[in-house]
Amino acid sequence: MPDNPLETIMAPRSIAVAGASNNPTKMGTIQYLNLLHSGFPGPVYPLHPKEKEVFGAKAYARIEDLPEVPDLAMLVVPGRVVPDMIERFGALGTRHAVIITAGFKETGPEGLDREKELNQAARAHGLRFLGPNCMGLVNTHLPLNVTAAPLVSPPGNLGLISQSGTYITQTLKYLHEKGVRLSKAASVGNEASIDLVDVLEYLGEDPQTRAIGMYIECIRRPDRFLDAARRIAPHKPIIAQYVGGTASGARSGSSHTGALAGPDDIYDGLFRQAGILRANSIEDVYRVGQALSTQPLPRGKRVAILTNSGGPGTAMADTLDRLGMEMPAFSPSLQSKLGALLPGHASAANPVDLTFHVDMTLMVQTLPETILASDEVDALLIHGIMDTGWADLAYPVFKDIFNMSQEEFRKGMQANVENLIKMPSRCNKPVIVSSFFGRNDHAARSLQDGGIPVFDSPEKAAAAMAALNAYREIQARPKDVAPAGNPSSSKARPIWEKAADRGWDEFRAKEMLRAYKIPTCREILAKSKADAIDAAKAIGYPVAVKGCHTSLAHKTELGVVHLDLVSADGVAAACAAIRDKSPDADFLVCEMVSGHREFIAGVHRHPGFPPCVLFGLGGVLTEALEETAIRLAPLRRSEALEQIAAIRAQPLLDAYRGWPAVDREALADILVRIGLLALDFPQIEAIDLNPILIRDGQPVVVDALFEQEKSIGH
Amino acid sequence: MPDNPLETIMAPRSIAVAGASNNPTKMGTIQYLNLLHSGFPGPVYPLHPKEKEVFGAKAYARIEDLPEVPDLAMLVVPGRVVPDMIERFGALGTRHAVIITAGFKETGPEGLDREKELNQAARAHGLRFLGPNCMGLVNTHLPLNVTAAPLVSPPGNLGLISQSGTYITQTLKYLHEKGVRLSKAASVGNEASIDLVDVLEYLGEDPQTRAIGMYIECIRRPDRFLDAARRIAPHKPIIAQYVGGTASGARSGSSHTGALAGPDDIYDGLFRQAGILRANSIEDVYRVGQALSTQPLPRGKRVAILTNSGGPGTAMADTLDRLGMEMPAFSPSLQSKLGALLPGHASAANPVDLTFHVDMTLMVQTLPETILASDEVDALLIHGIMDTGWADLAYPVFKDIFNMSQEEFRKGMQANVENLIKMPSRCNKPVIVSSFFGRNDHAARSLQDGGIPVFDSPEKAAAAMAALNAYREIQARPKDVAPAGNPSSSKARPIWEKAADRGWDEFRAKEMLRAYKIPTCREILAKSKADAIDAAKAIGYPVAVKGCHTSLAHKTELGVVHLDLVSADGVAAACAAIRDKSPDADFLVCEMVSGHREFIAGVHRHPGFPPCVLFGLGGVLTEALEETAIRLAPLRRSEALEQIAAIRAQPLLDAYRGWPAVDREALADILVRIGLLALDFPQIEAIDLNPILIRDGQPVVVDALFEQEKSIGH
Repeated sequence: MPDNPLETIMAPRSIAVAGASNNPTKMGTIQYLNLLHSGFPGPVYPLHPKEKEVFGAKAYARIEDLPEVPDLAMLVVPGRVVPDMIERFGALGTRHAVIITAGFKETGPEGLDREKELNQAARAHGLRFLGPNCMGLVNTHLPLNVTAAPLVSPPGNLGLISQSGTYITQTLKYLHEKGVRLSKAASVGNEASIDLVDVLEYLGEDPQTRAIGMYIECIRRPDRFLDAARRIAPHKPIIAQYVGGTASGARSGSSHTGALAGPDDIYDGLFRQAGILRANSIEDVYRVGQALSTQPLPRGKRVAILTNSGGPGTAMADTLDRLGMEMPAFSPSLQSKLGALLPGHASAANPVDLTFHVDMTLMVQTLPETILASDEVDALLIHGIMDTGWADLAYPVFKDIFNMSQEEFRKGMQANVENLIKMPSRCNKPVIVSSFFGRNDHAARSLQDGGIPVFDSPEKAAAAMAALNAYREIQARPKDVAPAGNPSSSKARPIWEKAADRGWDEFRAKEMLRAYKIPTCREILAKSKADAIDAAKAIGYPVAVKGCHTSLAHKTELGVVHLDLVSADGVAAACAAIRDKSPDADFLVCEMVSGHREFIAGVHRHPGFPPCVLFGLGGVLTEALEETAIRLAPLRRSEALEQIAAIRAQPLLDAYRGWPAVDREALADILVRIGLLALDFPQIEAIDLNPILIRDGQPVVVDALFEQEKSIGH
Repeated sequence: MPDNPLETIMAPRSIAVAGASNNPTKMGTIQYLNLLHSGFPGPVYPLHPKEKEVFGAKAYARIEDLPEVPDLAMLVVPGRVVPDMIERFGALGTRHAVIITAGFKETGPEGLDREKELNQAARAHGLRFLGPNCMGLVNTHLPLNVTAAPLVSPPGNLGLISQSGTYITQTLKYLHEKGVRLSKAASVGNEASIDLVDVLEYLGEDPQTRAIGMYIECIRRPDRFLDAARRIAPHKPIIAQYVGGTASGARSGSSHTGALAGPDDIYDGLFRQAGILRANSIEDVYRVGQALSTQPLPRGKRVAILTNSGGPGTAMADTLDRLGMEMPAFSPSLQSKLGALLPGHASAANPVDLTFHVDMTLMVQTLPETILASDEVDALLIHGIMDTGWADLAYPVFKDIFNMSQEEFRKGMQANVENLIKMPSRCNKPVIVSSFFGRNDHAARSLQDGGIPVFDSPEKAAAAMAALNAYREIQARPKDVAPAGNPSSSKARPIWEKAADRGWDEFRAKEMLRAYKIPTCREILAKSKADAIDAAKAIGYPVAVKGCHTSLAHKTELGVVHLDLVSADGVAAACAAIRDKSPDADFLVCEMVSGHREFIAGVHRHPGFPPCVLFGLGGVLTEALEETAIRLAPLRRSEALEQIAAIRAQPLLDAYRGWPAVDREALADILVRIGLLALDFPQIEAIDLNPILIRDGQPVVVDALFEQEKSIGH
């Protein structure tokens, strides 16, 4: 990653702030003051056309007056002056900027022109910038904060990239209260120069960032994004929320950053392919990001639950189970070790249920120690740690009895969580806590500050644990690369040339598939009834005869498909019937493929995206069940296998009802190859292989439809 | 609901507490002190064998010494003395108790014996009790609190019923911080006398409870529960979390309250049938319960979003869309009204995006007013209201500049939310707010205290709004009643008698179905080849011939099903082949039903539950897709229709690929009637109608399998 612009933007030596004034209600002033307050160690120069001083600091009227070439220019000024200022910063030698100002392409044609002007000015000087229409960035380790909200948390290890500025400003206090600690965060705004891929690549290499969270409304360079995420995900977890794929979401998104929203299924496929964990809410991004950036990964799915109450333990177990985790029953020897420590009615099985106890010693020391030391579990969930939170609640009831100050009462209740804090790294096993008490509670606060996540519900804690395991599984995925070889022989080009002239009919489409070594049913194209009868004989009865013509797309509905013909008479009758419906059609004589399992594979194009390869249940049920998964071409073989494994109807792919298991490798070949085909011939708008029947476990393409982009030709 | 025991338990005039002592670390003492501290208005009598006084109050050594017959006895004493104490309270005349003590059936055989003893003692005196092994109850309106945690919130309107005590104790402070206000809450423990149905029936009638939240691990009286919920749900919303249907969850559950866990699908069906909203976490129970207990219902799906930031607005829109809500674009006239109020780059479409502003006037007054006054929306979501929370955050940065105390700075930022608080009831439209600032923020706190939910994420706010609409849809469901008539004629009993003797084969099973007016394919049972050929002629070719015998369950796999026979020769060959495999089989000659859509209907039994009626995709895909929905018999007609509408593959039920729409009423008839059949003949363990084919839109049962309970006979 040579010269990633974020290197300087996240760690400039000096900053000029255009838009800082002595009016503390102005955005520029607020962000300037936050920058100073954050403790940024370098010089900061306020720029203002009129002010001589800004809150005691010398202000500069013109960029050219600055005492040095600032590493970073920050602009919070009216939109109309932005392009010119960037031009002048560029001329001065500044190569990096953050442009907070809004009113660019997100507002319409006039703004779009202004954004073009801005880009031109920047490009002329090789200047890279974040924004416009963004909320800036945070680097807790420098520290540096140019957002509208003051930094409140100490440095941490979760990096954030957001297409909404709110999620790195309005939420800073919220994050502090949840114990979530950021490393670096950027609001990317309109992404006119630097986009989320740049930030992703930067955070991927950043040693202070252990996990990356993203809020996404639109990915502008999906191929580059996929490459970057594929590279990063095996060594650093990425969790992303995507919104905007739904109809209403899309409208809101475009009013916001001018983002073009893409459909949810494509993003979902992209995330899975890239090895990105998908979050359903911004809370999940933060929460799972917190777990991923603080905890070691479990080495397996086996989770122990320790609780002081049955309900939360049951809820954790239920959540784990739904998410495919395991909660093994403890061995008799571990149960007896634990039982020796436990009070009366407590259960030493998994979950270990202490029952309600105000003394936390068992829960934060002896029991976790014993559980984590065993090799029976890979991870530990604890519910119910609390001390001063409970004390504060109880104090009004007990104050007259104990004759203690609240502070003394609190002190008496404080749990010693120091050992527990050390356990994850000492045992190399993750620990996640759930408690209904937040940072007002000494134990919760100490755990969070010690790097152990404390979530406010058992379900959230359990789901975060499952996410750690999901990331372990991503790490364990095969490390194959994109298919270098392309099975297409010299045959593909001539087929393409003919189709470009005359269009695609079923026969030509399947010819092309065969050129890519994709298995189709055996078939012969016949021009006449007599030829068709000969063809049927050559193939062997029973056969199917279909009308074949570039104009015949939905053949069954048109009545030009005749199946299960067992004689020359049948073939002749079929030919007559076809000619009746479609006088120009040829006859495609195909072997009958008997197979009960029907799948679909296909390709369609989404603006800006690589070809989208689809796999799913085919045949009659295609539209009724919409059981499909999408990945982007070119697919790696392992990705195609994973795509096949992503649909719900897995039993159909295994040995089922006396039929053999489907050859998944052969199916994967088809998916990889139609992706290559679509990359080789971008003028093919869509590919539809439906159904693909399974004969003796092998996929056979029985029908194929190619759609050519109308306007372009070849 | 005459004499619901909760009437007294929730509002006793006097209470005796056994187990209160001068040791403040004892549970009994803690609960006693909480009871006093809660402000319970009646007399409370501590009972203790040795203490003369308990924290200054006269203590009683023996129940018989009490100065009056207490309305309620609360027991926090060793398990071994519980039965005797209940006996003595009963003898004294006390008719209600709360038994906190654990160590009963949840601990094994000895505990089970003790629980039986307890039940005997109670029943002898007509004494009803909550528990044992529970955490007590709360009535914020009396007030009364006998739990281990002090009451901290003022009275509210959300009732809670929990099979885990934690959710009404450890969470009381959490609930306060979220602004969730309870009316009454009960922890039901082992449910030896009073179970969750009793509490549900009580809260259903309770005027102080506007919505009911439930945490459920096991329902012990599902039929009664279904009846109660059906009665309550149309006028009072119920939201419930169920855990324990999964393997690990079940283990944890039984270690907790001795609950027998039931499978998730059955509970899911029961909830839907009863009109209960299902929650996935306890947080959802509280959160959706808060919305339901404070807000008017929307009159439709149209939601307006008002935000000060694009991301949360987009996320809300996305969540609404996923949940089937609508976010209509505003009319030009409404947009121009709003536009006149908005600053520069703000969007007046829906979402209305104010962009970042510290002044809240627009957001809490003028804009909501204008939006809610229009008839273009049914509900309003707002993101970003905040005042002193933001002030506290900014103060350290600005304190030297403004030369103000923090209190003054805060005051200056305070938003006036009083108007907003009045809007839901004035406009009769719900308002839900999302903010990343909690109760430390004056605006958030004031809104919560004024009855407007403030959630800490846009997605949660949007999901709660969708839940309000989901409840509106439950209210709008048809109010039909269970089928009073039963179509079974006098024919059913003789069929049953025969089957009880000889077992069920396919023919007899279908005879029974026909007795219940369930449509099957036409068919004739033949004893010989010749009879079969005659039968085929009578039915008309093509026919199917199947081996028919009580021992033949999976006929296709056994090779005794011969389809599409077109001649007497074919029938003869089929008969020979069948006899080959199964010498004792008769021949069932059936018409061939051609239909591409295959469904399954069936009944199975789950311990303690009414017959579970299943509907789903049938045929080859049954096990591969597991696309099914379950309801409990007897089904109302509307419930059967709703069950049919619950599976994902709805397009298959509508007009599809040239086939007519399926007659849903006829399918519903089948579901209602197999439920009645299962109720009439409890010895039939399972019913399997698979496939049900659709011919000209009409369902036809093509194959049927009945399983008889082996051990019982008739």
